Amino acid sequence: MVGRVFLVGAGPGAPDLWTLRAVRCLEQADLVLYDALVDATALRRFTSAPCFCVGKRAGRESVRQDAIHRLMVRAARGGKQVVRLKGGDPFVFGRGAEEALALAVAGIPFEVVPGVSTAIAAPALAGIPVTHRGAASGFLVLSGHEVDVVRDALEAIRPNGVSVVVLMGIATRGQIADVLMARGWRADTPAAIVCGASTSDEWIWTGLLAQMHAVGPPEAVAGVLVVGDVVDV
Amino acid sequence: MVGRVFLVGAGPGAPDLWTLRAVRCLEQADLVLYDALVDATALRRFTSAPCFCVGKRAGRESVRQDAIHRLMVRAARGGKQVVRLKGGDPFVFGRGAEEALALAVAGIPFEVVPGVSTAIAAPALAGIPVTHRGAASGFLVLSGHEVDVVRDALEAIRPNGVSVVVLMGIATRGQIADVLMARGWRADTPAAIVCGASTSDEWIWTGLLAQMHAVGPPEAVAGVLVVGDVVDV
Repeated sequence: MVGRVFLVGAGPGAPDLWTLRAVRCLEQADLVLYDALVDATALRRFTSAPCFCVGKRAGRESVRQDAIHRLMVRAARGGKQVVRLKGGDPFVFGRGAEEALALAVAGIPFEVVPGVSTAIAAPALAGIPVTHRGAASGFLVLSGHEVDVVRDALEAIRPNGVSVVVLMGIATRGQIADVLMARGWRADTPAAIVCGASTSDEWIWTGLLAQMHAVGPPEAVAGVLVVGDVVDV
Repeated sequence: MVGRVFLVGAGPGAPDLWTLRAVRCLEQADLVLYDALVDATALRRFTSAPCFCVGKRAGRESVRQDAIHRLMVRAARGGKQVVRLKGGDPFVFGRGAEEALALAVAGIPFEVVPGVSTAIAAPALAGIPVTHRGAASGFLVLSGHEVDVVRDALEAIRPNGVSVVVLMGIATRGQIADVLMARGWRADTPAAIVCGASTSDEWIWTGLLAQMHAVGPPEAVAGVLVVGDVVDV
């Protein structure tokens, strides 16, 4: 009997933002592979299965992506129910789609359990709605990891039209602000940085797009950039 | 003692995609005001408080937005803990930001409890990742309710750059497809319609952008349009 892999979203940080379905998956798991941002103490409340952190942590090497694939495939072939617990939603960046594809290629049955996306929840918990009548007709979600990709995506949208949310963009925030302003976004467009949303490390800054590069958010905590009039609603 | 209002996201439909925090809010509620897409039977498992549906249902008038505001404010002023349970995430369309503003103006303490957004979860549950390396560097979320607003937002983005997710766009799918193609999106761009995601009414179509207008999704169920190469991943 081949097991099954559950690609589960753990939300922005606080374990009470896990879904009931996520908890049920954990309760039935034989093996849990979790990201660095997942609350490992809370994990222990819901499962007695072996739990391994496979994400990037300060000062340590992360497990390589292909090694994560091999771990999941091997455990499922051994008949195990595997939970792959990922920060936010499993299909919003973070290589969830690659993990799903690797499982499909290996013929391993899998299910996606959507989670609360940090892209929406981090602004919300800071009081910023990503949509609001009159302020934003929609929102664009990008990863700030590769600045060239961001530049390409941002150049494709009209200045000050929709809200822009950038995940993994703390380190590149200055470049991203420069790209936006070069593209014609107003220097005084409201902007926010939200780090560690829903955790005890929560850190929030709001100001103007032109000031974003000069802010010093905490280094170790993941953060979200929000740019657009919704920041000022 | 003034009570408190919790603006809570109920996710795409299935009650096991509610968060643990949502459940705790329901357990402590004195009054629940819920949207039409919320599973009322499941609601009863978590609360014995009075529960009123204030959303739009087939054949019935919905409660007016200002009446919802008044209900929340009056109950909170009477010392009640009020849960306002909304489909998806409370700050992704659906006028959650307006409700938060109305509470702020009235001086009522409130909290936002983020939910699993239908914009991300509906595609995910149909096997479509809104982001994937090489297929989409990001995604744009729009409401299809007002076609003029959609036209404006879609004209602001470059064709075939990011994935586009449209909520409340079932009725306007033909016009939206026309706007996209007039803007230069390829007629053979992969497209999907996902209705009733995570419920027993789930209905999924995948095809090409040019075919989207001719598809006949179920009328009564809320749906999501997805346009972009990620549909084909």
